[in-house]
Amino acid sequence: MRLLRIGAPGEERPCAVGPGGVVRDLSAWVPDWTGAALDPDALRELGARLEREAAGLPAVDPAAERVGPPVRPGGHLLSIGLNYRMHAAEAGLALPDEPIVSSKAPSTLVGPHDDLLLPPGGEKTDWEVELAVVIGRRARYLPDRSAALAHVAGFATGNDVSERSWLLERGGQWVKGKSFESFGPLGPYLVTPDEAGDPQRLRLTCRVNGRLMQDGSTADMVFDVAHLVWYLSRFMVLHPGDVVLTGTPGGVALGRPDQPYLRAGDVVEAEVAGLGAQRQRCRAAAWAQARG
Amino acid sequence: MRLLRIGAPGEERPCAVGPGGVVRDLSAWVPDWTGAALDPDALRELGARLEREAAGLPAVDPAAERVGPPVRPGGHLLSIGLNYRMHAAEAGLALPDEPIVSSKAPSTLVGPHDDLLLPPGGEKTDWEVELAVVIGRRARYLPDRSAALAHVAGFATGNDVSERSWLLERGGQWVKGKSFESFGPLGPYLVTPDEAGDPQRLRLTCRVNGRLMQDGSTADMVFDVAHLVWYLSRFMVLHPGDVVLTGTPGGVALGRPDQPYLRAGDVVEAEVAGLGAQRQRCRAAAWAQARG
Repeated sequence: MRLLRIGAPGEERPCAVGPGGVVRDLSAWVPDWTGAALDPDALRELGARLEREAAGLPAVDPAAERVGPPVRPGGHLLSIGLNYRMHAAEAGLALPDEPIVSSKAPSTLVGPHDDLLLPPGGEKTDWEVELAVVIGRRARYLPDRSAALAHVAGFATGNDVSERSWLLERGGQWVKGKSFESFGPLGPYLVTPDEAGDPQRLRLTCRVNGRLMQDGSTADMVFDVAHLVWYLSRFMVLHPGDVVLTGTPGGVALGRPDQPYLRAGDVVEAEVAGLGAQRQRCRAAAWAQARG
Repeated sequence: MRLLRIGAPGEERPCAVGPGGVVRDLSAWVPDWTGAALDPDALRELGARLEREAAGLPAVDPAAERVGPPVRPGGHLLSIGLNYRMHAAEAGLALPDEPIVSSKAPSTLVGPHDDLLLPPGGEKTDWEVELAVVIGRRARYLPDRSAALAHVAGFATGNDVSERSWLLERGGQWVKGKSFESFGPLGPYLVTPDEAGDPQRLRLTCRVNGRLMQDGSTADMVFDVAHLVWYLSRFMVLHPGDVVLTGTPGGVALGRPDQPYLRAGDVVEAEVAGLGAQRQRCRAAAWAQARG
């Protein structure tokens, strides 16, 4: 099943792609794509019901409305660092002995086609196409990797946008360069495991202004999805709606000779094969404080 | 006003201390201590209404029920590192040039008297009494520190529990040592600024098994609350319900000659003067995976 959320920011309705490719509004069945609604068993039942009863649900045209992130923001948003051999090499860093875990502000989760807001004064905003894993069932001290994938609701295309100067040059921890507003485009779809296929055989690409900048495969991960979910469950309880960005392959601006960091007007297109394509236009963030 | 949340985990009701010190259940007035209910103006109006109409609200006995964290978990939970001169010295680290920002899993927020669960295999779980700042109004690119405190809903006693071995010795980022379940006791109260007084003149203490381990003052902060809120707003949008743990004074186990890390049966009592006292009993986390 392919889940998505459609509507203005904060007012998204839970939808899914039904028979014939028609997107249906599932608000009558689930409150949102969050919490218990993401349980893998519940999603399987819902998928079967959608096959039977889709005609009774309102059809939605995703091209006519904003597409939001396919999971409600508010969970823990984790980011795994240096998890592709090629990216570690281009960053000039050794392969990690165990996963490097960082995080982003939960509110950075936005829709896949929302504008990417470049921070005032930030000169090194960079792209990172990633396979995003959405947790569907609580995972706590999993004994080994074999049980890990049963806790996954599904997969999505993610872009772990990062401001390199503030990530690397301002002291302390990476969260500082990864938490700017709009830095977590997710979706369009949350694709359940049965439909996503083997998560370690997916091609990831990222184009900037039409130029292919990243072209990798999840087969190149240092720690695969099952390992990451198991590993994280030893350090924190993973809850439904938590999102794990699993690292980026090579080809980011940081690793290129000309370091072509993003500028206003640039267009970023990230895609994980089978999970749907994103497209963000970059613009300078309005500086003024808005109350609300 | 002193806000608190009372009830079983996930089922807490929003309460406040009313006239005569009687705790009242405010469920009829606000959905929870989260989002728009935390706006400083809204809290001022609510405080005035509570003075007038408290008698119409159910009284609650906080000694007879569990006290939860005074704000609903789900916001960004930030942790400032090395923000007291004494703690930086005992950790053997230089004072930072700008705030060091880390984070904890949002789900670590628990009540002030909940058990502190020691992770299996973790030998270096440490205490960190801290002044917690709860955001009440969206803060985005604040121009300077002068406007920062207007975005604060209030203050609370916090304990930024940390597993030192996994924070320092397992590669990468601190989030790994700060995100274990139960590692973010908060409260009992969220105290509004008018009642908390000058946030830079508060005594912080932490006792373990009755022995005074930490005894500091927020006057010793390297970066004060206004600076931190302003600074963070330049890197991320702060939302109502986000919590900033502002650093710990000296006296943690890490900085003591005998490094007396927490063991099962230990009792930790953290308090920020005027904000209320916490008391956690340490026990080993049950290893078994619970489904749910």
